[in-house]
This record gives sequence, C-alpha cells and structure tokens, in this order.
Amino acid sequence: MENKEIWLPSLITKTPQEGRELAIKMARKSIAAIQTDPEVRKKLRDDYANDTKQLIASANVVALEFQTVAAANNYWK
Amino acid sequence: MENKEIWLPSLITKTPQEGRELAIKMARKSIAAIQTDPEVRKKLRDDYANDTKQLIASANVVALEFQTVAAANNYWK
Amino acid sequence: MENKEIWLPSLITKTPQEGRELAIKMARKSIAAIQTDPEVRKKLRDDYANDTKQLIASANVVALEFQTVAAANNYWK
Amino acid sequence: MENKEIWLPSLITKTPQEGRELAIKMARKSIAAIQTDPEVRKKLRDDYANDTKQLIASANVVALEFQTVAAANNYWK
Amino acid sequence: MENKEIWLPSLITKTPQEGRELAIKMARKSIAAIQTDPEVRKKLRDDYANDTKQLIASANVVALEFQTVAAANNYWK
Amino acid sequence: MENKEIWLPSLITKTPQEGRELAIKMARKSIAAIQTDPEVRKKLRDDYANDTKQLIASANVVALEFQTVAAANNYWK
Repeated sequence: MENKEIWLPSLITKTPQEGRELAIKMARKSIAAIQTDPEVRKKLRDDYANDTKQLIASANVVALEFQTVAAANNYWK
Repeated sequence: MENKEIWLPSLITKTPQEGRELAIKMARKSIAAIQTDPEVRKKLRDDYANDTKQLIASANVVALEFQTVAAANNYWK
Repeated sequence: MENKEIWLPSLITKTPQEGRELAIKMARKSIAAIQTDPEVRKKLRDDYANDTKQLIASANVVALEFQTVAAANNYWK
Repeated sequence: MENKEIWLPSLITKTPQEGRELAIKMARKSIAAIQTDPEVRKKLRDDYANDTKQLIASANVVALEFQTVAAANNYWK
Repeated sequence: MENKEIWLPSLITKTPQEGRELAIKMARKSIAAIQTDPEVRKKLRDDYANDTKQLIASANVVALEFQTVAAANNYWK
Repeated sequence: MENKEIWLPSLITKTPQEGRELAIKMARKSIAAIQTDPEVRKKLRDDYANDTKQLIASANVVALEFQTVAAANNYWK
C-alpha cells in the first residue's frame, strides 16, 4: 500500500542540499506512482541509468521539482 | 460524458502529499481529455508503465502540475 | 480565416476545471496555428491519440498552459 | 540582416490573444536565429507541420513564451 | 580557457530584443560548457540547424532562458 | 560516499556567471545521483557531448536550474 505511506509531510528542508535530495525523491515517487511494481522498477533502473538521454531527462524532472522546493523554502535565505 | 464530471473543484489540498496526488490526477486527466476512450487508455497503459523514457516524461508532467498546486497552497506553509 | 477568430478574450475562468479546459484549448490552438489545414489536423489526430509518448508530451503542454491560467486566476482563491 | 530588424520592441499587448500571437512569433524567431537561411526554413516547414511529435513540441515552446508574455501583461487583468 | 571569460556580467538589457539575444547566448554557452571543443561544436552545428526536432528543442531552451532574463528586467516595464 | 559531500551549501553566488556555473553543477549532480558510478559516467560522457540532441536537452536542464539560482539571488539586482 505504498500510496498510503506519508513520504511528503512538508516541502521545508534545513538546507539547499536536503532540498535537492527531496527533489530527487519527488521525481522517484512520481515514477513509483505510475509503475507500482517495485520489481519491475528495479529491472527498469538499468535501462535509464546507462542511457544518457534518460539521465538528462531525469535531471530535467529534478530541476523542476527543485524549483518548487526552493520556492517553498524561500531559497533558504 | 467524462468531460462534464467535476473532478477539479479546487487546487487546495490539506497536505503536500495530497497535492502530489492531485498533480498526478491532473496529468492523467489531460491524457484522458485527448484519448477519450477508456478501453484504449487501458491498453496503452502497458506501453508507458514499462518504458522508462515515458515514465520519466510522465514525471516531468507531474512536476509541472505540482508547481501549480504547490503555489496555490502557498507551499502549505 | 481562423487566425482572426477571437478565441482567447480573457484568461479568467469561473472554476479551476474551466481553467483546465482553457489550457487544453490553448494547446490545441497552438497546433492549429502551425498546421493550419483542419483536414490534415484531423488525419494527424489518430497519430498522437494512440501514441502514449505523444499523449504525455501533450499533457506537458497542458500543464504549462494551466500554470499561466491558474496564475491569472490567482489560483481561484 | 535579419538580426538587426527590431521585431520585439515590447512584451505588452492589448489582448491575451495578441499575446498568443506574440508568443508564436517569439518561438519562430528563435528558430530563425539558429537556422538563418529562410529557404532552408521554408523547406523544413513541411517536416514539422505534418509530424504531430514536432507540432506538440512547438506548442510546448509557445506555452513557455506565453507564460512570459502573460506575466509581462499582468495577465491582462 | 573559455570558462574564465566573463560573458554574463549582468542579466539586465536595454530592450526586450536584446534580452532575446542574451537568452540565445545563454543557451549557446551551456552547450559550449559541455562540449568544450569549438571545432567539434562547429561540426555539430549542421546536425541541428537542419533538423526541425532539434531547432524546436533549441527554441524551448531559449524560451526558458528568456523567462529568466525578462523577470530580471521586470519585463522592461 | 558522494551523496554525503556537501556540494550545495547555498544558492547565493556573487555574480550571474557564477550562478551559471552553479546551475551546470546542479545539473551534473542530478545525473551523478542517478548513475552513481563515476567510471560509467565518464564512459557515457562521450555519448552526449557529441550528440546535439543531448547537448540541447542538457542546456534545457541548465536553463531550469538557472531560473532557480537567479530567483534566489534576486537576479543579482
């Protein structure tokens, strides 16, 4: 019942770097919400971790998620 | 008459995580608005749930939708 | 003279859901502005409505357009 | 000397629809800035006007440009 | 030592059109930062200047960079 | 233990150009977070540095990251 797990209680993080980690987590959780089978995801992981096109596309998602996290934290100013 | 169903009465959610669920719903509803046949959508689902390129592209859409939901909720601050 | 038709008098909508409909319309009108032949567009429609890659890319456009519509409506708050 | 032509004196437009037209112009001018030969561009036009993938990608660019134009015009409120 | 050259002293430009030129420069400098060999870049240039898919993808980058430049200049209002 | 290294203590930079360098670093660190093996990354580097499609996609990520850095620095105004 992965969907029920509370994995995003808040967008606030202590540091920008923790904000990056949260952004990566958000990206991964989106993929887990669509492909819900962890075994399939594990198998698929090799596909994208060795394909630069997909690594760059993943970085695009992280950049978008981080925009949200950074704004929520007022850029840690 | 799927288009008539009120599925987005508000962008406000109680928690960030409910905001993620709303963002995923928004992404799905966009696809349903273009491919209106639920049977075809069900058949297409296998295509993208096992293709990491498409999973990443889907996560990009969710990230964009979540930017809107998060701003609407003033980042749940 | 499709270009002369006033299809976007305002970005203001009554509800978030009407905002979604406007966002989808904006995306469609962009495509119509580039491929101006409605017969060709109708023929092309099958191409993308059955291709999940293109459905996801379309949802990306809708998400971007909705960001603008939602901001214009101050998120219907 | 296409580069010297002043085609963007302002981001302000009278109506949202004129803002759409400006957004489309901005997208086209970006392409003209990279592929500077108008004859080549004309020849390439068939490539993308009949390819839904590219029409959708073009609509993505228009959506981004319109975000900027709409913000500049305070959403014509 | 291209990296040491100061090519971005400021995001402020006198006009929107100069802002477009800066946005294009920013996009080009990103590519130069990854593919640092100018000879290779020159050779690659033909690849994308004649491929509409890549021209559109380039226009997407310019649109994003221009969003930043326009905000920095308060939309030249 | 690359993940433990503090590489993003702040989004503040002295100049816009340093902001660009930070944006590029952010994009690279996202890729390193997904493909954690530096030897594999080095091998993959040739794939994208000579493929204009991937160079443009990388520039898209840098543009997004720079939007965040520029906002954090109030556009260095």
